[in-house]
Amino acid sequence: MSKLTLVIGNKNYSSWSLRAWLTMKQAGLEFAEIRIPLDTPNSHRDIRRYSPSGQVPVLLDDDLTVWESLSICEYIADNFAPYLWPEDKKARAVARSVSHEMHANFFNLRYQMPMDCRGRYPGEGMKPEVQGDIDRVCTIWRECRQKYGQNGDLLFGEFSIADAMFAPVVSRFITYDVKLGAVEQAYADAIWSLPAMNEWVNSAALESEYLYRLPHSQN
Amino acid sequence: MSKLTLVIGNKNYSSWSLRAWLTMKQAGLEFAEIRIPLDTPNSHRDIRRYSPSGQVPVLLDDDLTVWESLSICEYIADNFAPYLWPEDKKARAVARSVSHEMHANFFNLRYQMPMDCRGRYPGEGMKPEVQGDIDRVCTIWRECRQKYGQNGDLLFGEFSIADAMFAPVVSRFITYDVKLGAVEQAYADAIWSLPAMNEWVNSAALESEYLYRLPHSQN
Ligand SMILES: N[C@@H](CCC(=O)N[C@@H](CS)C(=O)NCC(=O)O)C(=O)O
Ligand SMILES: N[C@@H](CCC(=O)N[C@@H](CS)C(=O)NCC(=O)O)C(=O)O
Repeated sequence: MSKLTLVIGNKNYSSWSLRAWLTMKQAGLEFAEIRIPLDTPNSHRDIRRYSPSGQVPVLLDDDLTVWESLSICEYIADNFAPYLWPEDKKARAVARSVSHEMHANFFNLRYQMPMDCRGRYPGEGMKPEVQGDIDRVCTIWRECRQKYGQNGDLLFGEFSIADAMFAPVVSRFITYDVKLGAVEQAYADAIWSLPAMNEWVNSAALESEYLYRLPHSQN
Repeated sequence: MSKLTLVIGNKNYSSWSLRAWLTMKQAGLEFAEIRIPLDTPNSHRDIRRYSPSGQVPVLLDDDLTVWESLSICEYIADNFAPYLWPEDKKARAVARSVSHEMHANFFNLRYQMPMDCRGRYPGEGMKPEVQGDIDRVCTIWRECRQKYGQNGDLLFGEFSIADAMFAPVVSRFITYDVKLGAVEQAYADAIWSLPAMNEWVNSAALESEYLYRLPHSQN
């Protein structure tokens, strides 16, 4: 076995780190963690030591460097755990589409409701432009659950990379107390009760850094 | 063989459409095209008829809908043309990392130098914040060419999805006359002379729509 190391940001704040980390945990992989707190005087320099793009997460596999959260997830599926994508060809295509949509969109939600696992700010961030993003997320969750989710509680039944991509959104909906329909709420509960998700959230709660860069604390 | 249809925007302007289209052409696939001009009173409604996300490109394969440019490329590789990713495990991981980096970043370059295949606006869009994006693109191109590109003229030698992801950037560098080093220029020339790229650019030149939404025409 190769020696895997995942470089991540603060667990409380780094949503992209969570996506890669959760995927690796769900694949049952052993890996070392290097945690680099964000927004410190040295964080940019420290991240650059590992990351060609200047961002976390970064996966180190011996002398190979893999970056970008979704690319790391693909690497894990490709080399260790192909079941991280649904086996059915159509389900797999849709799982990739919603994962990529999460990766490249939802800017209003991401900006107005930044991930803050241990924080509770009910109602904050709910700007008018965020509602469209929330609605689209809920549509994705409902359609995946209804069309592809029969064999389990998650978007495509069993855990897939699509769930990792949306896990930080579940955390945001809890932090900002976003009201959900029954299907979406059941899905959010299923993500929140994954043992690996619990482990991440518990570690986040123990971190000592407190970032003041969030929109809700800027006013 | 299934019947494939790719829904795209204007060839002159829709950079994400080009990425999926070029990948499908390079895979030698036959497919129908539905072209929906962007920024018309009906374009939003027309795109929604096909696209769950409200964006192009969208691939229709019989009753299956696949969206997001890079997800469409993955679908093509997965089902029709696995050689669209490098065969070597390390090269494949890096090809995915740079493809995902293109998908989720470079906002200054994308905003200040929008794709306009037939337009020539030398020097425009060169705002200070764009230089960092250009430098990073050039670093990616140089490193891929030098480490993985021996067997051909492209990023990973032969054509890969990574080339499709950066092809619109090549077009932008021509439109805005961005000066490149020798390695990057040779790579840009190789992309620009692909027969499929020529076909796209020639079709773009014949389109009748003219969009005034570009930053350089907004002043
Ligand atoms: N598209 C990237 C986004 C990664 C990203 O934005 N990471 C943030 C932390 S969550 C980061 O490293 N920021 C750099 C910094 O804050 O210095 C991915 O999917 O990995
Ligand atoms: N992340 C998406 C981006 C797609 C995108 O932004 N498409 C633009 C055209 S290039 C679009 O459809 N815009 C909708 C509109 O202009 O109405 C992808 O990779 O496919």
